[in-house]
Amino acid sequence: MKTFYGDLKLGILGGGQLGRMLIQQAINYNVTVKVLDPDREAPCRKLCDEFVVGALNDYNTVYNFGKKVDLLTIEIEKVNVDALEQLEKEGVVVYPQARVIRLIQDKGLQKQFFKQNDIPTAPFQVISSPAELEQTTMPFPYIQKLRRDGYDGRGVYKVVDESYLKDAFKEPSLIEQWVDFEKEIGVIVARNESGDISAFPMVEMEFNPDVNLVEFLITPSTLPFEIHQQAETIAKKIADDLKIVGLLAVEMFLTKDGQILVNELAPRPHNSGHQSIEGNVVSQFEQHLRAIFDQPLGDTACLNNAIMVNVLGEEGHEGPAVYQGIEKILKCPGVYVHLYGKALTKPFRKMGHVTIIDADRENAIEKARFVQKTLRVIS
Amino acid sequence: MKTFYGDLKLGILGGGQLGRMLIQQAINYNVTVKVLDPDREAPCRKLCDEFVVGALNDYNTVYNFGKKVDLLTIEIEKVNVDALEQLEKEGVVVYPQARVIRLIQDKGLQKQFFKQNDIPTAPFQVISSPAELEQTTMPFPYIQKLRRDGYDGRGVYKVVDESYLKDAFKEPSLIEQWVDFEKEIGVIVARNESGDISAFPMVEMEFNPDVNLVEFLITPSTLPFEIHQQAETIAKKIADDLKIVGLLAVEMFLTKDGQILVNELAPRPHNSGHQSIEGNVVSQFEQHLRAIFDQPLGDTACLNNAIMVNVLGEEGHEGPAVYQGIEKILKCPGVYVHLYGKALTKPFRKMGHVTIIDADRENAIEKARFVQKTLRVIS
Repeated sequence: MKTFYGDLKLGILGGGQLGRMLIQQAINYNVTVKVLDPDREAPCRKLCDEFVVGALNDYNTVYNFGKKVDLLTIEIEKVNVDALEQLEKEGVVVYPQARVIRLIQDKGLQKQFFKQNDIPTAPFQVISSPAELEQTTMPFPYIQKLRRDGYDGRGVYKVVDESYLKDAFKEPSLIEQWVDFEKEIGVIVARNESGDISAFPMVEMEFNPDVNLVEFLITPSTLPFEIHQQAETIAKKIADDLKIVGLLAVEMFLTKDGQILVNELAPRPHNSGHQSIEGNVVSQFEQHLRAIFDQPLGDTACLNNAIMVNVLGEEGHEGPAVYQGIEKILKCPGVYVHLYGKALTKPFRKMGHVTIIDADRENAIEKARFVQKTLRVIS
Repeated sequence: MKTFYGDLKLGILGGGQLGRMLIQQAINYNVTVKVLDPDREAPCRKLCDEFVVGALNDYNTVYNFGKKVDLLTIEIEKVNVDALEQLEKEGVVVYPQARVIRLIQDKGLQKQFFKQNDIPTAPFQVISSPAELEQTTMPFPYIQKLRRDGYDGRGVYKVVDESYLKDAFKEPSLIEQWVDFEKEIGVIVARNESGDISAFPMVEMEFNPDVNLVEFLITPSTLPFEIHQQAETIAKKIADDLKIVGLLAVEMFLTKDGQILVNELAPRPHNSGHQSIEGNVVSQFEQHLRAIFDQPLGDTACLNNAIMVNVLGEEGHEGPAVYQGIEKILKCPGVYVHLYGKALTKPFRKMGHVTIIDADRENAIEKARFVQKTLRVIS
């Protein structure tokens, strides 16, 4: 592969905020960046050497885009994998590898992979038809997930009792035993081409159950050391089993009886790692670049307490975005604003995030609550 | 002025590395960025919404560029100030103000300003002709500086004795008593439109005398607290006397008898503040944006020991740049590489910088020396 600085052409499938923050970091390495996204107003449109408008799930579009780069990566996993496999055959480096993306795209395959590799996960059953769902012996309540294309809480349905079955998904899905969890935790791990593996310290997530989105994330976690260790060991094992090159975000449940169960994987930078930009020695974006460039992985240590707050479009507002209260937030020391360059807001759209850094954990939490109350995206 | 996120058009005069790092930060605020630079291969060319190729010292070019933005700033002070004054009259916000740039462009006016405002500086004399130089009563040795257009050590000449006079500059200049200094120190200060002033902690610089460039910079400084205080007080006073809006870099000498003398000003982000990207709560680039957007200034505290090493083109190499040893450097924890996107190297050209962060000052220095030995820009 060409040297990663100067003459390397990096292609990114997807031009959203993850790509945007990846480019912000890639600027430090003189990489030529090309981006493919269906939205001509995507957050990356003005920050790359070439911006191509096109469908990420179309074979020819992805293939033709990939032929013009040396190294192809993703910021979203809903991409045409057949095209990626063909590109790999023709010598384009695709990281994460096409086979990894194919596996992770399908929640059924993901779950089977967990089972085959002794990775702890909630009991599940793959469901191919409504008839099969009706015959399941899994006790209520359980969660039904579409095998493909779920995103940010879409494609997930809780089957509380028999009366819920009529509204269940008809498409291929899996059902999963309801986990009465204490916490959602996450570990982002990176593996480079040489096989080095490095994990970021575990993060704890607070979900907003109304919208099924992470709203608040804190690191380092104050959970017992053994939980950190177990979570990290599991995440590293998955990266090693997959032989992935690049970042892997591993979302896990910590159950009320102290068990860790893997929920889902994402083979890319992840919302649960944004606080690493200011909170860790290297950020997840820097680490992803190092991994796919086959460079030494960076130090993932936490520099301080860090909280990440998603900035979501306010309910009842749709149109050109207005950021209310931003001046008040900038007055707080250790508060970092990241807007994603989206012109239009809509309810619960991810418009940006704010990271809060504070040597005192309680202060950090107080500031995070202030940020959540104060910053509103309206139209 | 329009809100600084979303709909504000920011123009930057100059598209070099300072503009590049300013844009890297401005991405967080959704600002529309236009850049003017004479070099169509300038480091900012691919990172802005619009890149205009044109001369920064040409009235019409600067005027026409400025008419298309809401707020105009600079990353280099060699720009056409007449155009900026006209733009100000016509309602374009220019920060730093045209009058400040005009004063700082001319080292003679700068020195007179120091004198008028009781700012400590080395004794000097403004020289308009070779005849005037011959008649000076200033004792040898002294330094002759061109009044205009000096940059990175060019336009400076040491007059050791009478025999040096024949090679002295013929253009308008100033001569300055030779200062036998202990250290070069610097303070970067910011002032916003509302008049708030905030200084970054003082940095100590190590110069490479062969090329007259900063090669090594360390912060926080271990010099006595009173020196920090005096340097900061002087820098803040200058910002307040000038009523500048934006960043002001104040370069100072600490003489062997403990006196602080102001050497030069730069009304913009500065090489002596690059370590603030990783080393301080807010970086100089973030602070400049906050100042010119009239936002609350950020916390300038040092997070840790930080050293900045300039990455210069190797002597004897001219052509497409090759970065040797970069993989070895990425192995060190707390080492951050910033390349400036310049395709061609030449001797002593600033091609990038590396920041070293370490809780142990001696370790940081050791790593910095390793970086200097290891990273070479050849062709």
